[in-house]
Amino acid sequence: MIELAKRRAISAEALVQGVLTGNRLLLARAISAAENEHADAHAILRAVFPHTGHAHIIGITGAPGTGKSTLVTMLAQQYRAAGLTVGIVAIDPTSPFTGGALLGDRVRMRVLSGDSGIFMRSMATRGSLGGLSKTTNDVVTLLDAAGFDRILVETVGVGQAEVDIASLAHTTLVIEAPGLGDEVQAIKAGILEIADILVVNKADRPGVDKTVKALEMMLETEGSQTRQIRHHGQLLTVQAPPAVVTQADRWQVTVMKTVAASGDGIEELRQQIEAHNVWLHTSGEIKVREQLRIAHTLENIMRAELNRRIKASLPLARLNGMVEIISQRASDPYTVADTLLAEI
Amino acid sequence: MIELAKRRAISAEALVQGVLTGNRLLLARAISAAENEHADAHAILRAVFPHTGHAHIIGITGAPGTGKSTLVTMLAQQYRAAGLTVGIVAIDPTSPFTGGALLGDRVRMRVLSGDSGIFMRSMATRGSLGGLSKTTNDVVTLLDAAGFDRILVETVGVGQAEVDIASLAHTTLVIEAPGLGDEVQAIKAGILEIADILVVNKADRPGVDKTVKALEMMLETEGSQTRQIRHHGQLLTVQAPPAVVTQADRWQVTVMKTVAASGDGIEELRQQIEAHNVWLHTSGEIKVREQLRIAHTLENIMRAELNRRIKASLPLARLNGMVEIISQRASDPYTVADTLLAEI
Repeated sequence: MIELAKRRAISAEALVQGVLTGNRLLLARAISAAENEHADAHAILRAVFPHTGHAHIIGITGAPGTGKSTLVTMLAQQYRAAGLTVGIVAIDPTSPFTGGALLGDRVRMRVLSGDSGIFMRSMATRGSLGGLSKTTNDVVTLLDAAGFDRILVETVGVGQAEVDIASLAHTTLVIEAPGLGDEVQAIKAGILEIADILVVNKADRPGVDKTVKALEMMLETEGSQTRQIRHHGQLLTVQAPPAVVTQADRWQVTVMKTVAASGDGIEELRQQIEAHNVWLHTSGEIKVREQLRIAHTLENIMRAELNRRIKASLPLARLNGMVEIISQRASDPYTVADTLLAEI
Repeated sequence: MIELAKRRAISAEALVQGVLTGNRLLLARAISAAENEHADAHAILRAVFPHTGHAHIIGITGAPGTGKSTLVTMLAQQYRAAGLTVGIVAIDPTSPFTGGALLGDRVRMRVLSGDSGIFMRSMATRGSLGGLSKTTNDVVTLLDAAGFDRILVETVGVGQAEVDIASLAHTTLVIEAPGLGDEVQAIKAGILEIADILVVNKADRPGVDKTVKALEMMLETEGSQTRQIRHHGQLLTVQAPPAVVTQADRWQVTVMKTVAASGDGIEELRQQIEAHNVWLHTSGEIKVREQLRIAHTLENIMRAELNRRIKASLPLARLNGMVEIISQRASDPYTVADTLLAEI
């Protein structure tokens, strides 16, 4: 109880100062406030926002079984070896049957712990429908304000929501692995087109060349090796500034091989990410991506806030009554939705 | 142009009559109207809603590579052999690189075509963020009103949005397959707990017993073999009616083996689905699920409508200006979101 009282006693101002000075404990508290949609959360995020914009944000996505977690761990260590600090946000579709993700994260945290240049936070997707994208972005904002040079956002890239999270990144890696079935998972999941860099991990496995070939063929089939900027959100549409695209402005999507478990290819991958970072700035593309990121962020915040207001304005008893009326076919959900919306 | 004019000339009333009399062409038009959020869509859905409630809705979900499509095709044929009509909604995360899903669907449609007791519609997830769940439900409503006895909703069960779609079903099948990597995909994706029936497809492959064992162990580990009703939405919470749960009221989740490609185990699976259907009605559980389905539907409609209103109320030029201000750190997205929301 004393501990709880102590936690409550920390003011928003103290948390903001903690984040900006890189105090790990206070950063963790601020992240928890954002995750739990604490009353102070937006005040904290507002206060730290002017101090963001330093970090390069890297999205890492891929089907289950591609070895994303190990790859992210190794990549973080490689960045540390290169003298940069790293924040990690791992989004896990945790199953209550296993708690598998949490267990795996504990192993990872042990590997990465003891290094004050790395901060890792894992978030479960359960029960956070719709709000996950916003929360992830809030956590990235806090890590950015805390001064981390690179932020790795790891998601299971199979659902639209997860892909959308990847679109909050400056550089997106799509991870593939040989031997996961008949087809290339990223193609089946429709996430190939968000990749700035394609990675075939577990490249010591049989079938690696087939997987690499399949990916390279896909890139060629498309008739273009430049990543197209796409805006996945539905709500807002931001116009990219008009630009004359020359050959030099284009980014070449490549297929890279790694064996994360042994570290093979990780340094090469890190250098390719940095090359993309440089390209973003020399080509001016960084401005477009930043605008899309901000539009996404705005959209996420507005949507979350509207959901909150709807929930707050509907007493449960009334809602249950409405559901009962609909289930008896005495009305229909479209009419009831209109009625409820008119009242808000 | 004449064709277009003709299409436009069909009134909402004619479409409603078409749906209710099972006219395939008009049903397809009504579905398109719902998908494209045509101005008439809600009028049509309102009019047909009182005629819904007949169909048993079956969700089929699983990771890419588990053979869902083939299984759904075979299951539909088995239902036809048993004298029931079948509507199919296939949700595909189509990649623009391949058009793979569309190609696969064409093969399927050829197999299923020429039978007026089957109606299939496939929907791509691209660009439909947030609205997919609502649209899927609208299409299910139309198929239900058109009198189909069973409706199969096939989704890639890996993202939260896709899992949410599965929760719109009366009976949920989670499909697994051996040899997709180190771990059971459904466990990694966190979708095991939504299963009423677990299916290990491609059961002629090596490793099938290992996969079955892993799933059975998970069910036992949980200490309960009854599926827990869960409400995945964030917005609404419906209270299940209080009930005394006795042993007879419980549903036993089982692991079934199929080889969809050859048809092995499909009839047994169909019978198990029907057993679940019977259990839902004898236990009274059907009422709980219907209420959750309706609450989800309401939530989806309200969310989609709010998104539409936000979009309509924000001129693009103004939005771009706001994004620019934020990108210069002259304001922050939280403050701007508040300002914009206050204006709606």
